[in-house]
Amino acid sequence: MTKERLYLFDTTLRDGQQTQGVQFSTAEKHQIAKTLDALGIDYIEGGWPGANPTDSEFFEQAPKTRATFTAFGMTKRAGRSAENDDVLAGVLNANTPAVCLVGKSHDYHVTKALGITLEENLENIGASIAHLVAQGREALFDAEHFFDGYKANPEYAMQCLRVAFEAGARWIVLCDTNGGTLPAEVYKITKAVIEGGIPGDHVGIHTHNDTSNAVASSLAAVDAGARQIQGTLNGLGERCGNANLVTLIPTLMLKEPYRSAFEVGVTEKALAGLTRASRKLDDILNRVPSKSAPYVGASAFAHKAGLHASAILKDPSTYEHIDPEIVGNERIIPMSNQAGQSNLRKRLKEAGLNVSDKAALPRILDEIKRREGLGYAYDTAQASFELLARKELGILPDYFSVRRYRVSVERIRDDHNVLKTLSEAVVVVEVGGEKMISASESLDDAGNDRGPVNALSRALGKDLGPYQQVIDDMKLVDFKVRITQGGTEAVTRVIIDSEDGDGHRWSTVGVSPNIVDASFEALLDAITYKLVHDKVAAV
Amino acid sequence: MTKERLYLFDTTLRDGQQTQGVQFSTAEKHQIAKTLDALGIDYIEGGWPGANPTDSEFFEQAPKTRATFTAFGMTKRAGRSAENDDVLAGVLNANTPAVCLVGKSHDYHVTKALGITLEENLENIGASIAHLVAQGREALFDAEHFFDGYKANPEYAMQCLRVAFEAGARWIVLCDTNGGTLPAEVYKITKAVIEGGIPGDHVGIHTHNDTSNAVASSLAAVDAGARQIQGTLNGLGERCGNANLVTLIPTLMLKEPYRSAFEVGVTEKALAGLTRASRKLDDILNRVPSKSAPYVGASAFAHKAGLHASAILKDPSTYEHIDPEIVGNERIIPMSNQAGQSNLRKRLKEAGLNVSDKAALPRILDEIKRREGLGYAYDTAQASFELLARKELGILPDYFSVRRYRVSVERIRDDHNVLKTLSEAVVVVEVGGEKMISASESLDDAGNDRGPVNALSRALGKDLGPYQQVIDDMKLVDFKVRITQGGTEAVTRVIIDSEDGDGHRWSTVGVSPNIVDASFEALLDAITYKLVHDKVAAV
Repeated sequence: MTKERLYLFDTTLRDGQQTQGVQFSTAEKHQIAKTLDALGIDYIEGGWPGANPTDSEFFEQAPKTRATFTAFGMTKRAGRSAENDDVLAGVLNANTPAVCLVGKSHDYHVTKALGITLEENLENIGASIAHLVAQGREALFDAEHFFDGYKANPEYAMQCLRVAFEAGARWIVLCDTNGGTLPAEVYKITKAVIEGGIPGDHVGIHTHNDTSNAVASSLAAVDAGARQIQGTLNGLGERCGNANLVTLIPTLMLKEPYRSAFEVGVTEKALAGLTRASRKLDDILNRVPSKSAPYVGASAFAHKAGLHASAILKDPSTYEHIDPEIVGNERIIPMSNQAGQSNLRKRLKEAGLNVSDKAALPRILDEIKRREGLGYAYDTAQASFELLARKELGILPDYFSVRRYRVSVERIRDDHNVLKTLSEAVVVVEVGGEKMISASESLDDAGNDRGPVNALSRALGKDLGPYQQVIDDMKLVDFKVRITQGGTEAVTRVIIDSEDGDGHRWSTVGVSPNIVDASFEALLDAITYKLVHDKVAAV
Repeated sequence: MTKERLYLFDTTLRDGQQTQGVQFSTAEKHQIAKTLDALGIDYIEGGWPGANPTDSEFFEQAPKTRATFTAFGMTKRAGRSAENDDVLAGVLNANTPAVCLVGKSHDYHVTKALGITLEENLENIGASIAHLVAQGREALFDAEHFFDGYKANPEYAMQCLRVAFEAGARWIVLCDTNGGTLPAEVYKITKAVIEGGIPGDHVGIHTHNDTSNAVASSLAAVDAGARQIQGTLNGLGERCGNANLVTLIPTLMLKEPYRSAFEVGVTEKALAGLTRASRKLDDILNRVPSKSAPYVGASAFAHKAGLHASAILKDPSTYEHIDPEIVGNERIIPMSNQAGQSNLRKRLKEAGLNVSDKAALPRILDEIKRREGLGYAYDTAQASFELLARKELGILPDYFSVRRYRVSVERIRDDHNVLKTLSEAVVVVEVGGEKMISASESLDDAGNDRGPVNALSRALGKDLGPYQQVIDDMKLVDFKVRITQGGTEAVTRVIIDSEDGDGHRWSTVGVSPNIVDASFEALLDAITYKLVHDKVAAV
């Protein structure tokens, strides 16, 4: 059986930019376009040329993509020709091979929001699409509020689609703009559209997640015959977001009936890079990746229940719907007081620790539980978990001990009467019976203050005697702070991500009512872990 | 037309506890049970009595609920009677009116994971359910891996259900344990189950979100005739989570065909408390609420696009699928460099600022854009946004200025040779031409160190001369830290939530490479905002 082609249209750079708290720089838009192109997306919508400075700048230096690079705009306004509409001209001037124009298809919006007649709107749609085609562009028509419009006035909504299609639009995209339409209704209306004369291989679907059904509605539209899906990476988008392509891609490629029926532009190899692509977007946006994200989340293949974990050890398919490696993700058996001993043994094994002492397992579990009660969290801080286990097992070398430290932050006027901030740290450490005192300022090479944790890190890293060269290539790459509950008091939990010269990365945790002290504790764990990891012996 | 009853079964306290990073204390379980009961959930599953100390303790002090309080367990093991199974006895001893037992319905799992015969498994199911019924309990049977089991061996999977039903189970719950089944398949198989002899009003659905279809699959099962939905608050649960009841409840109550066809236990008044209930769970778990959560997320009714915002001002239904007030949420028109002037005007108006000076709007937009480039974020920090606008408009009183400050953190051995942390802050402020110096330690009433930001906050709040009594009732309620990009450098962004004696709450932002300095800036904004908000005149 020949597979039918199903097209993926990404609007991360346009609709995704409407996410609250998100704004892309031009450089970031280029990074994201590159990621999308490597993934094998068919269309990349870059933004609205002319609508804001970033989008205009991006189109001026348009990325070279294998995907069809697409500009977004809106149909011409009433009372002028398509040729004389300056907004439309701005879009066309970006010279992209494809242009996607949004236009009204809900009668109420035509008369209320635009304040024009229904006929004028039809003329705007037809003339704008025809103008794109005459300019040699592939034309897409985003029918705004289509499902609500169809429910209110099916004849008029269909007329809008037909006008666009007859004017030469390659794709007629049914948009559930307000996100309130449920999958069963999307199926029914999409089917009616195709029966009403728009061929399925010219129909696209554009959904929003306001009822948590963006993915399901996209699939329902494909079930009804649509052959293009519009969505975004990680489901970015206004309000609750757009359909998440990161979720849809593996579903379409791995699950029936889609797997056998359709071909998409994403290869198996690209699919194995999906988790990385998803996390890369979060890195660019400086967002914390959603742990519970389908397929790519850090928890997507995490098995906490003791019963599940022991079955997984026998056969992963017992509690996993797909093999995590296919999408570049991994299986995790995290620690917590829910975890049984089989979880713990698995995790110790991952850390290279084979525990023969049977009594040690409940002891480690108790200690984890006690510390979690104080506010510690070992789900992410795997390095601190390993140190805790080693300590309980009596195999953690006694590298050094901190006798005391002091750090200060001062904001004062400098010689030029400018307010400046400066941090200073003093640390006293004992290594192999020898006491060492080091001090450090927090200034970087450019003379800028990097803060108290940085000053402490430098002072600590300055003189660790025989260990010095092992930790020289370490750097602090991320730093997360939460206020949490430790017993009856609010405490600060700091998680530090460190990296060494080999690109090896590890997470450690510190807890204290004092943020600097919590950071210092996480810092100490980070250094100790590095020494353990590099198999350094204690002096 | 009489509405049919649709039942909601919550498993936040059981399956929700399998979420990575989540662990409830007994007190938290009580708080959550109370929230669920107030919402009008029909069944509250409290956990597995006997499986771990927290669950056992919770059932010993079981909450009094209007909802049917339910204990979870598993069917008896082979080779012993239901009466003699100690695990099952532990569950029954909790004396709950209802008991939900999970059992196998997938032949592969019976022979592979349990290592017993298919007949033994049927006997385990039947005898266990019959035992519950004999003890006068309402019995529920969770058919684990039902959909995968049905696809592999439909006859055996159906046999498992029939045995449970014939033994007297009130509900037969179809579980998509691994979360890999798509909605269309859930519909088809649920329909087959009902046609196969289990009446729809005895069929429940239990889905997971591994393909982002947990909500859609729950709806599909109801479409096919199921009349109980199992889910969790905020979609907590192992891996990608369970079906989110917070999303399902408004969909069932507000959207067709469900609205007209079904009655649920949630009243309209309780529905108006849905957003609060959802955020309360996050508060208990100390999680950051998902902004993009359907219905209840802070972004669910946020309109960033300039065009949308101006239409919303004319008629909210143009870009909203429901009125946010129905679920206790609110409309937001946030700031960002995407925002047009209509957004800005709307937001200034919300802050009580009517801007007549036309040139001021682009000036404020430019300043926001400049500061966002430095790492500031004004989407959440509404109070800092208002101060920025007031400053640009020349209507921000000059209350006081900070001349300098110094804060130190020390970790030393006390008189009893115990390592202790202590912070100390000195702040010099000028108020109305007068210089004031205040110092504060960070120790709370119990003598515990609360950290450098607390020390600074106390020193600053100790002597603000004539403003003192206005800020006396202020307290810092939350504190979030992110490393972000400010220009070419990594900087720290701190967002502080403050609250006053009237329960009024506001957010401010500070940015600096130095975490203490960023905190201090957010703290200053918090105090200034309080003075502005209380209409205090500058001295």
